[in-house]
Order: sequence, then C-alpha cells, then structure tokens
Amino acid sequence: MIQLDEIPNLKEISDSEAEGLCARLRARIIDAVSRTGGHLASNLGTVEITVALHRVFDTGRDRVVFDVGHQCYSHKILTGRDTAMDTLRTFGGIAGYPKPQESQDDAFIAGHASNSVSVALGMARARSQRGEDYHVIALIGDGALTGGLAYEGLSNAGLSGEPLLVILNDNGMSITKNVGGVAQHLAHQRLKPQYLQFKKGYRKMMSVLPGGPQIYRVTHKIKTAIKETLLPCSMFEDMGFIYLGPVDGHDVRGLTRLMRYAKELKGPVLLHVRTVKGKGYPPAEKNPDAYHGVSRFCVQTGEPLQPSRPSFSSAFGQAVCELAAEDGRICAVTAAMRDGTGLGSFEAQFPERFFDVGIAEGHAVAMAAGMAKQGSLPIFAVYSSFLQRGYDMLLHDVAILGLHVVFGVDRAGLVGEDGETHHGLFDVAYLSSVPGMTLFAPASFAEVRSMLRHAVRKVSGPVALRYPRGGESGYRGDAGVEPTVCLKVGKAITLVTYGITTGSVLEAGAMLEAAGYAPEIIKLNRLMPLDDEEILASVKKTERVLIAEECAAMGGMGQQIAAHMAAQGVVPKAMALCNTGSGFITHGTTAELRRLCGLDAESLYQAAVEVLKRE
Amino acid sequence: MIQLDEIPNLKEISDSEAEGLCARLRARIIDAVSRTGGHLASNLGTVEITVALHRVFDTGRDRVVFDVGHQCYSHKILTGRDTAMDTLRTFGGIAGYPKPQESQDDAFIAGHASNSVSVALGMARARSQRGEDYHVIALIGDGALTGGLAYEGLSNAGLSGEPLLVILNDNGMSITKNVGGVAQHLAHQRLKPQYLQFKKGYRKMMSVLPGGPQIYRVTHKIKTAIKETLLPCSMFEDMGFIYLGPVDGHDVRGLTRLMRYAKELKGPVLLHVRTVKGKGYPPAEKNPDAYHGVSRFCVQTGEPLQPSRPSFSSAFGQAVCELAAEDGRICAVTAAMRDGTGLGSFEAQFPERFFDVGIAEGHAVAMAAGMAKQGSLPIFAVYSSFLQRGYDMLLHDVAILGLHVVFGVDRAGLVGEDGETHHGLFDVAYLSSVPGMTLFAPASFAEVRSMLRHAVRKVSGPVALRYPRGGESGYRGDAGVEPTVCLKVGKAITLVTYGITTGSVLEAGAMLEAAGYAPEIIKLNRLMPLDDEEILASVKKTERVLIAEECAAMGGMGQQIAAHMAAQGVVPKAMALCNTGSGFITHGTTAELRRLCGLDAESLYQAAVEVLKRE
Repeated sequence: MIQLDEIPNLKEISDSEAEGLCARLRARIIDAVSRTGGHLASNLGTVEITVALHRVFDTGRDRVVFDVGHQCYSHKILTGRDTAMDTLRTFGGIAGYPKPQESQDDAFIAGHASNSVSVALGMARARSQRGEDYHVIALIGDGALTGGLAYEGLSNAGLSGEPLLVILNDNGMSITKNVGGVAQHLAHQRLKPQYLQFKKGYRKMMSVLPGGPQIYRVTHKIKTAIKETLLPCSMFEDMGFIYLGPVDGHDVRGLTRLMRYAKELKGPVLLHVRTVKGKGYPPAEKNPDAYHGVSRFCVQTGEPLQPSRPSFSSAFGQAVCELAAEDGRICAVTAAMRDGTGLGSFEAQFPERFFDVGIAEGHAVAMAAGMAKQGSLPIFAVYSSFLQRGYDMLLHDVAILGLHVVFGVDRAGLVGEDGETHHGLFDVAYLSSVPGMTLFAPASFAEVRSMLRHAVRKVSGPVALRYPRGGESGYRGDAGVEPTVCLKVGKAITLVTYGITTGSVLEAGAMLEAAGYAPEIIKLNRLMPLDDEEILASVKKTERVLIAEECAAMGGMGQQIAAHMAAQGVVPKAMALCNTGSGFITHGTTAELRRLCGLDAESLYQAAVEVLKRE
Repeated sequence: MIQLDEIPNLKEISDSEAEGLCARLRARIIDAVSRTGGHLASNLGTVEITVALHRVFDTGRDRVVFDVGHQCYSHKILTGRDTAMDTLRTFGGIAGYPKPQESQDDAFIAGHASNSVSVALGMARARSQRGEDYHVIALIGDGALTGGLAYEGLSNAGLSGEPLLVILNDNGMSITKNVGGVAQHLAHQRLKPQYLQFKKGYRKMMSVLPGGPQIYRVTHKIKTAIKETLLPCSMFEDMGFIYLGPVDGHDVRGLTRLMRYAKELKGPVLLHVRTVKGKGYPPAEKNPDAYHGVSRFCVQTGEPLQPSRPSFSSAFGQAVCELAAEDGRICAVTAAMRDGTGLGSFEAQFPERFFDVGIAEGHAVAMAAGMAKQGSLPIFAVYSSFLQRGYDMLLHDVAILGLHVVFGVDRAGLVGEDGETHHGLFDVAYLSSVPGMTLFAPASFAEVRSMLRHAVRKVSGPVALRYPRGGESGYRGDAGVEPTVCLKVGKAITLVTYGITTGSVLEAGAMLEAAGYAPEIIKLNRLMPLDDEEILASVKKTERVLIAEECAAMGGMGQQIAAHMAAQGVVPKAMALCNTGSGFITHGTTAELRRLCGLDAESLYQAAVEVLKRE
C-alpha cells in the first residue's frame, strides 16, 4: 500500500518539490482506486491543477467548487484524508465526491454536472455582500460545460463583474473550436512571465501616476481594439471573462504561476487548462472512457479483479436493439451516458439512429418530444437522478401533447458507492406527478424485455421503465405487463412490492412462512396509472399490509396506495411502509444501504412480524 | 372592431402588398388585444417576421416552433383565426399560445422559454429519419436565448448538421456583444442581393463543373481562413451554424428574401433579426415592458381600462422590502420576472442586493444555494410553473446541504388566461418531494407578510411560500404560522383547505350551515412538514371529510392526508378530494376555471352535501 509519507506545506514548496508531490499523488491515487474502485481517469487528469490550487489558494477559507466532483481525490489527499483514501466510497468511509460535512475544505456538493459556476457566483456575491475577501474558484470539466446550466452560470458570472476564477479542465471532449486556434497565440503571449510582470507593473505604475488611470484606460482601449480586430474573440471574453490560456494542465510550474496571476485580477477570470484524462497511467491514457469509473483492478495489467456481470442496463440496451431491428422509427437518445445506459451496441448497430446530446438532459427530453411529435419513436435512457433536470420538459414538452416518448430510467433506487447525489429515489414521485405518464417497474431482465416491448408497441403517451443499477436479485421471473400480479397466495398479511425489492420480499415471505404465517405477495408491474383492485381485495382479506419499495417515502407507491385505501374505506388493522425514508442516503454497497433502509429480507421480515403482532 | 377583410394568398403577394398586410395585421392586433388583453409588445415586434415566414414556408406542413409562444398572434390571424381573435385567451376561445390541438399550423407547445431549438432539432431529425422533406424553423426571442436549454439545443443542432432554420428575434435585451459590432459588416455583405445570387450561382456552377466541388471546397477554405483572420467569429458560427444577419426585422422585403435564401441552405442556419418590441404602437414602443402583457386598454391613450389591484405578488415584494431593511443578509433573486413577482420596488431600494439572472431558473436556484452556503439569505421569487425547471437544483444544490434559501412560489394554482403551460399545479407535489423542505400557503396578504417573516427568521433549511396570481379571495385574516388552524368548529363534516381556496371553503361552509349542517373548517398554514393531528382529531369526530386545494390530485395534500389517515387507522365514512384533477387545465378566467375544477363555493358546497349524504 502506497501512502504519502508526509504532506508538505504547499505554500512553501519549490516547483520541483511540487513536481515530486504530483508524482507521489498520482501513484497514491492509482494504488487506492485499484483497491477500492472509483473514478480514476478524471482524477489522474487533475493532479497538477489541484497541487497548483493548493499552492496558491487556501481551500479552508477560499472556496473551490468542483464540477463534477469526481476529480477531487488529490484534493482529499492534500486535506487530511490520505489515510482515509483506503475507505473511499465505502460505507462509513469518505465519499467519492466533495462533501462539506466531511471537511471544511470541501466547499460544495458536486454530484450533478454543470452547477459549479452558478454556485461559485452565488458564493462570490455573498462574499462581496458580506464584505469578506476570500477567493472563489470553480473547477469545471469540458464535459460539464455542455450543460445549459454552465452556460447560464457563465453568462451571469461574466456580466456580474464579481471576482471569481473559473478553471476549465479541458481534456478535449466537447469544446467548440472557438477555444483554441488563434487563442493559443494570445495565451503564449500571456504566459510569458515577463509579460505578466510587465502587465502587473504597468498597471501599478498607472494607478499611482497623476493621470495614470486615464492613460491606462486609453491605452487599454487601443490594445483591446487592436486585439479585437486582429484576433478572433473567444466566447468567454464576449461573456465578460478575462480569458487566460490554454495552458498545459500537467505543468505544475506554469499552472501555479498563472493561478497566482489570476488571483490578483479583479473580475471574472477563465483559465483554460488542457489536460489528458488518465495522465500517467498508460491503460487509462489509452482508454480514458473505460477508466472513468472502475471497480477494483490489477495495477500491473489494468484488468478488473472481478469480471463484469450482466446488468439491467445491458438488458435494456439489448432490448432496445431487438425492437429497433423490427421498427425503423425507434431512436435511442443518451445524455453522455452511452456505456452507462447500455447503449454501446445500439450505437454500433444503428449509428444513424443514435443521439448522444452530451450532458444536457433537459435538451434530450425536449428533443425527444420534437421527434415523437413528427413520427419517430425516441427512447431516452437516463439515470433517475439526472432525469430530475428534465422535469419541466417532461411536463411541458412531452406531457401536454401526450407524446409517445419512452424513458429508460436507469439507476432507479439505491446506486451504492456514488452516494447521495446519485441515488434514484425521487423518480416515482416526480414521474407520478406528470399527467398521462405510464410507469413500469421491471424486476428482472426478462421483464425489462417484455415491458419495454409493451411500452413501445402498446402504450400511447409518455411511458417510463424504472430499473436499478447492477444485476438481478433473487427474482428472475417474467410477470408480464398486467398492472399487478399475485406471486403468492396467503391470508396473514399482504406484502406489496415492485422492482428490485421483489427478491427481498420473496425471501422475507419465505421466512414468514417458515415462522408459520402465510403472506400474500403482490407485485406491481405497473406503478402508473395505479390499479389497486387486487391490493385492496387482498388487504380486505388479510387486514394487514406491508408495502416495500426502493424510493423515497414522499410520493412513493406506499403513500399512493394508502391514500387509495382511505378513499375506498379499506383500512387495515396494521400497515407498514418500507422505503428509503424522507432524507438523503449516504454511500456504501447497495447491500449495506438496503440494510440501512430496512429493505433487506431480514429487515422486511422483522417489519412484517411487527405488523402481524400489532393490535 | 377592426378585422382583416380578406387574407390574401401569401405565396403570391408582392412586397408592397406584404407591407400593406403588415400594417393591417398590426392594427388588428392592437385592436384585438385592447379588447381581450394579452401579449402586445412582443406580437407587434414579430408582424413582419411572421408575414415573411408565411410567404416563404407552408406552416401546415413545415414546422414553425415559437419561443416563447406569445409572439404568435399574427400567425394565428394568418391561419384562419382572424375572427377567433376576439375570443383570444377566453374560456372556450383560442389560446394565447400556439396549440397543436387548435390548428395544424401550430407545430408545438410554447409556454416555457428556450425549448424551441431542442424541439426543432428533434423534428428535423425525425424528418430526416423518416425520409421526409419539410422545413423546420425555430423562432426564438433573445430573452429565451438566456436559458441554458437554448444553448444546449443550439450546440447540439449546430453539431448535427441537420437542415433547420433558427430565427433569432433580437429586440436588444440580452445578446452578448459577440453578435453585432463587426458581425454587422459581414451581414451587410451577405445581405446584398447580388452577393446572395453570386454565392448561389457559384455553388451551383461548382457542383456541375468537373472538379468543381473540389475547387469550391478549396476556395471556400481560403475564404473561411481569411474571414477567420480578419473578422471576429460569431458564437453561432462556432457552434456550426451558417449565420445570416443581422437584418432589420421590420423590412418584410428583406426578411422574405433572406428566408428564401436560408430555405435553400442545407444545414443549420441562424438568421439574426433585429426587431423593436411594441413596433408601431407608440406607447408600447416607449415602454415595451409595461406593454408586454396587458389587460384591456384604451387604444387612444394606452391606459388600462381597469385599474390594477393589489396582488399577492405586490404583497410579497413589499414584505421582502420590509425584511431587507432590517436584515442586510437578505437578497432578492428573479429570473427575468422582476415586475411579475413584485420586486420592482426592492430593486429600487436595494439595487446592490437585487439579482435578475435572466430566464435561467436552474441557475437562480444553484446561485441562491451558493449564496446561502456563504451566509447570505437569498429569496428567489419565481412562478410555480417556471420553478419546475429548477427541480434538480432544489434537490441537489439546496436540499442535500439543507441550505436556507427562501422561495416565493408565485402563480401557484390556476393562473387564468395563460392556460395550461402557466398554471402552477405541480408545486405541491414536487416541493413535497424535496427532503427538508418547509412549505407555507398564505391565504391573504397579511399571511404573506407573517409567513415570510417566519420563513426568513425562524425556519432553517429550504423554505417556500406558495401563493396565487391576483388578489385576495373572501378570506383576509391572519391565521399565524402554526401548522393548522381551526377557522370554524362543527361536527357534521371536516373541511380542510389552504391558500386561495380558503375563501370558497368558508363560503361553502356558510351555505352548509344555512342548510342545517355544521362544518368544521381547518386551514393548513403549513403544508410541509405536514402536521395532521388537528385534522385527524376532527375527522374522528365528524367521520366525514372534504379536502379542497388548487393543485393537481397527484402528490397534493389530499393524497398526503388520506395516506396519513390510512396509516393511523382513522377512516372516515365518506371523503372527497377536490383539486384540479389529473390533467392539464385550459385557459379562461380563474373564476371560470375554478368552476370547471369544482373549486368554487357552490361546487364545494355540492361536494360536501354529497359527502354528507354518502353511506
């Protein structure tokens, strides 16, 4: 196990000591992630940026907002969490994303892309308003820059005049040609230390000379005019930013120098940094996508230690391919999550029907609505927590016209190690609130296939399937597409469930039987519209009910079914609603988190026994 | 009453006939809106664009996506709805926004800004995929361009290469300096008809000559290089658009010529049009903001026919000012709705604490989160239906850290004439799903004041007030900030309500009393967290309950309270949930729509009688 023997005071180290530190950090990250899994390529790309940040700024006081947060490992190591890296993303250990509760050095939450500039601007405004003088920095990846929220933030920040530094970590994925080309000439100029010195000295002189400020303003104006005539402008300068760069993101000396310069500028500054994703670890440099998020792997070979298992995502991707082969109207849409949502082979088979829009979920939803309006049949596969950003477009662009857009809501429920920002706990509530939405909850790969076929062929209007991260639980059947199905007849208690929780409920049911109680188990295939006839009939019979689901309590099926019971006057003697509760859930393995939420078989069994014993 | 005697075939009219038509359309719009109310300034600004569109395109087949839709009146008049203009925005009449159910010429829904390019791209993709050949046009205002969704759409559309035309209707509100300046030189060049002709002919020649395409490509490359060296690039060209303009938006000849040219280009084209908001009606030209949306007015003087009445928005704005005078941490944030949300006098009094971020609700929420994290106290006043676009940021940026951001959720419930895209029917559901959210429902101006004070001073974490468009109903009390309050003691039936519906429920209660039933009336002051002790105690006593609220059924308080009743085993003999149901609601006066939804006093009385008589 590699650890950094000692972390030096970064304010005092020399450039070459900083270089040495970067090499050690890189080795430490590779070692730690190989043993815990996590985000590798993005963290290897930001080692030098992070060291430079810590040389120049005080992260305990200055505010560094990461975007997305999965480039913060060097930062965590440098802020007292070197030893804790071995608990990375594990239950009770440190998070894989910045977390203010974990450290004062973590300025903000950073699990969804593109929010950093908005948040940083808010912080800068609060600073100015409160008369304080710390620095605010947003570190944003070029991927995150594709999100409209980043554009909103940049536009407003540029206009604001607030001193803040946006560091664009550009690993060459999605920048417009605007940035680069001739801008590079300008950057070279700026990078020359004598130029920086000259500029600083010149401004200083001008501010003390009588008439200086005026002369400075005039010469500055002329310079600006010349520059604008001769050089293409950059989008960022037009927005109101002082643009610096592009600069080599693995040159810690240059980065440090430039950040020191940027620190003294009084206004919004954009520092454009070119990095290599996976830098310093050849397998990751060669294939950065594959090493973006990894499970445990062998450092020597780069091979994962566990073979990858079939997942709901891959089952979904395969089902989309099968349907697309039969129906030329079908298109697949992703928001920068081709592999995560299992659409890799769709792209290979149907490239002209595959649309990756970048990190732009709202656009994906509205675009799909336009497609559906004109006779295509779009399937948008997206993580549950990321579709939150498309909520307005679901209502406005899809639902008002009742358009037939199919949503593959992946990572629904507990996702495990990525933690509170990534769990898909709210989709049942927000999708239920969309008028005309049909919502299915496949509990097995076979059901993904049959329900998707049904959604594509038999449903009109918006329709979604919600399914979890990872593979199947104990249940592997195919219960068809009827709204509800009775998996087990009994009379002691009604157990209602759906999706991935089906396995645990069946197991709990077996434990109840062994204990002498006969549970009736009803699985919801379709959550919306809710058809509760079978459930209500069962509850009338058993008079006791437990509803188990992997989503938040508020707006979940437990609440909806309970409300129906009250409306119908069907009132059980005892009822338990088992779900993830009313808060956010931390990180850990899904097994650990299910235990935490009381959604594992043993907990459900105990809850059912409690319902059975209640008077 | 002015009407257009006859609408000519626009494909055949001359330029001067088109100019005459524009003058008649303008007079017609002024006349119609003066009698029905509606959006005036924006519609006067787009008369010539619309006529040119109809001269060049076939809106029954080509798809024109308006953004926002309140610039579509000329289009409605030109597509068979001239007579119907006198029913504009009235119950049963035509809508103030494009509406595909109303006409095949209305391509899409357009009530929330910035979606047009995304939708148009979807349509263009469907067209190409389905092998069809119609044209797709997005008409987007510069206000809508501030929304991140527009940027996502433009980036993706530019990259796509799909033929589609984006018309930027620029009335000089929010364009970066990028567009304009030197770009204007370029535009003048392009506008010269001989240049257009030359360009077209040159390309044609090159495509038939042997070796032509190659020569064309090479010369094109040289031209591009020269252009890039000498002229600042435009953001749109960098995104992949062919940029045309800027062109005078009131020159129908020039517009027609340019659209004809754009129609033949094979790729994404952006046509930049400069317009004057309110064009042709001096009071509106002078003060376009005041004439953006108007009630009935006198054409001669420009004065409104009804004096404006105090509203919940103005009560809110005033309350914010009072609190801000006492507490220097308080800031006010708006997303391009300063006047609509009653913040005009706040800006006048506290300009340095007022932030208008443009149409960028997601950014507003994330920025407010950053402000709150660093010790400011932001109050974001926003329409209920527009806050839908900030849902993800509510969860991710505000709720995970439990930040104290205050939301003034204006236009909650039925808004009236703007119809289905503008009603605020989903906020109770989506705000309830946000962990840690506190939600108040003031029912009078006095309660706006006391609840806002409480929200600012006594609540920690995210907190929202939801209040309606317009003024008070019959209820004008101040019931304080306790979760619930009993307004009337009785034993026949429990009536539960909150917010603006309180007036109707009190009236219905009086009718019940007159009919010999004694209702118990409980008003919810606070919706979240729900404290139902008083309600459950009342229902135990009365055994009959009616819950009335102006929001959607799904996720509403009726559902939440019913679920609590089932969980607590409190089951009434009869229950009625009165709300706006499970669909979208059309346009009309709020009084008409309340009757439609069964939320007026008479309907509530009837529903209560039905509950009383049920066995």
